[in-house]
Amino acid sequence: MAASSLDVVGIGNAMVDVLARTDDSFLAAQGLVKGTTALIDAARAEALYAQMGPGIEMSGGSVANTIAGIASLGGRGAYIGKVRDDQLGAVFAHDLRAIGVRFDTPASIEGPATARCLVLVSGDAQRTMNTYLGACVELGPEDLDRTVIGAAQVTYLEGYLFDPPRAKAAFRDAAAIAHGAGRKVSLSLSDPFCVERHRGDFRALIRDHVDILFANEIEIGSLYETKDFDAAARAVRGECEIAVLTRSAKGSIVVTAGESVRVAATPIAQLVDTTGAGDLYASGFLYGITHGRDLAACGRLGSLCAAEVIGHFGARPETPLKDLAAKAGLL
Amino acid sequence: MAASSLDVVGIGNAMVDVLARTDDSFLAAQGLVKGTTALIDAARAEALYAQMGPGIEMSGGSVANTIAGIASLGGRGAYIGKVRDDQLGAVFAHDLRAIGVRFDTPASIEGPATARCLVLVSGDAQRTMNTYLGACVELGPEDLDRTVIGAAQVTYLEGYLFDPPRAKAAFRDAAAIAHGAGRKVSLSLSDPFCVERHRGDFRALIRDHVDILFANEIEIGSLYETKDFDAAARAVRGECEIAVLTRSAKGSIVVTAGESVRVAATPIAQLVDTTGAGDLYASGFLYGITHGRDLAACGRLGSLCAAEVIGHFGARPETPLKDLAAKAGLL
Repeated sequence: MAASSLDVVGIGNAMVDVLARTDDSFLAAQGLVKGTTALIDAARAEALYAQMGPGIEMSGGSVANTIAGIASLGGRGAYIGKVRDDQLGAVFAHDLRAIGVRFDTPASIEGPATARCLVLVSGDAQRTMNTYLGACVELGPEDLDRTVIGAAQVTYLEGYLFDPPRAKAAFRDAAAIAHGAGRKVSLSLSDPFCVERHRGDFRALIRDHVDILFANEIEIGSLYETKDFDAAARAVRGECEIAVLTRSAKGSIVVTAGESVRVAATPIAQLVDTTGAGDLYASGFLYGITHGRDLAACGRLGSLCAAEVIGHFGARPETPLKDLAAKAGLL
Repeated sequence: MAASSLDVVGIGNAMVDVLARTDDSFLAAQGLVKGTTALIDAARAEALYAQMGPGIEMSGGSVANTIAGIASLGGRGAYIGKVRDDQLGAVFAHDLRAIGVRFDTPASIEGPATARCLVLVSGDAQRTMNTYLGACVELGPEDLDRTVIGAAQVTYLEGYLFDPPRAKAAFRDAAAIAHGAGRKVSLSLSDPFCVERHRGDFRALIRDHVDILFANEIEIGSLYETKDFDAAARAVRGECEIAVLTRSAKGSIVVTAGESVRVAATPIAQLVDTTGAGDLYASGFLYGITHGRDLAACGRLGSLCAAEVIGHFGARPETPLKDLAAKAGLL
């Protein structure tokens, strides 16, 4: 195995978030389930946007947020994902490159616009997401840069990639390339509805191809069809090398074949917007893993990064995570 | 004069802000003057954007921010300005309509893209702006809706409109339509460099066509070519019905032929980003004027709205101004 020149390459649905404040009556009127992600088509995206309040646009995408967090920690990240050659696509590309992330996937020059996620943030800081996949449906195996994947210690994939059919094929190829190069493969389950849609695929994938799994307690419960968190944690043990299960304010637990490591949530001054909490937890954890930290330290880094992002609006870090981690004695 | 169905119609350069944090060394390296607005062309906009850090996109435009503030206070506002039929143009239109502002100016279907303002926010909360006018150069007299202007108590114009040549013609026509309908005309001087570019025009305009003038202390000093604020305030007295001069933390002063009313700045918990301070001051003042308040009350409303917007990132209110004003006993 050649020396790695990258810590993590992420592959995901590239999108721009449109964040707006909302209330429960709006969510109810629109038939939305608080805290989850719905897939919507272009017409529904237009209609919902027209009903929403004024927004703020920020680059998003679950795995892209994670890679942005890794860059903010001082790590070496790359990203593979599909935008179109439009204004929001240029915004997405800029915001990754501006923080030193390698992003070379060619934008599509025809077909749907750059993906958007309409993020509705409630007064209780919960976020409800509505994703129009747009150009993400164009991502395919031909977009995988074998050199980049081979050069990264970890290839990190989001469960959401199973929604666009060609991205699913790219996902499987990427895992094969990474393992062929002696690297690790990591997966985030993304969302409980996403797990519902792809449960069988995800279970097989975790067993056969995933080294490091990220899931929150609802997602892991959905995967193993149980409401009992401890039962879900038992079910995942040994299915992959490391399973990282996050539980919001209750902290997280890192499960391997031989041990369970409990990690406390990092206290925060004010909970503003939970968007990106899981994404940024993964930033910290993967930074730790690719820098030789033990599981407890990886979990503490994850908690720290998640705490930063839920203290403000939006899913990308505002304060350099490297500084926060250094201050907390974690670097 | 028919009864007004609108409080204020604003006419301005329609644009989306791209806000990013910066430091003094970046401003120096780019040759930028902190606290001012530079006009840049498409190539310079590309080059500067490529050098900037990751951004947040938000609808902006000085007068559009003011009208958004009036809507947030519960007032009836309309806006005239030019975007293109592109993604950022759709964002701009959405964000006005979503708060109840009437915005019917047709987007251009060819020519430059929707205008962007690259807003660099320093650690001391000062903002430095770089505007690419884009589609704003297409705004012309044909875009003026005479019915809307005739129905609004105040037609509010920004000095920046003097930069694109056809908008300047539209500006003069709009003032004539408003006065022809027995309405008031209000102007913001926008920026000291803008005053430099158009000093002669602005002086004549204020004397002949402006009823309510807004300027900060640097702009009014530039207009009358003096560094002495009191001298500038004496120079403007009587040139128009009401001159509102803002002085950041030192508050503001409202100057008429017969009196000077001093207004204190509203105390704030934390100064985060001064972008939009003048725009939102104008929101409060114009809301007051169009709701029969006396000058002191208008100034207090202006200070309250400015205080809200400088307490967070971005130039549009985050908290409903109506609620804040009610709480402060100003509604």
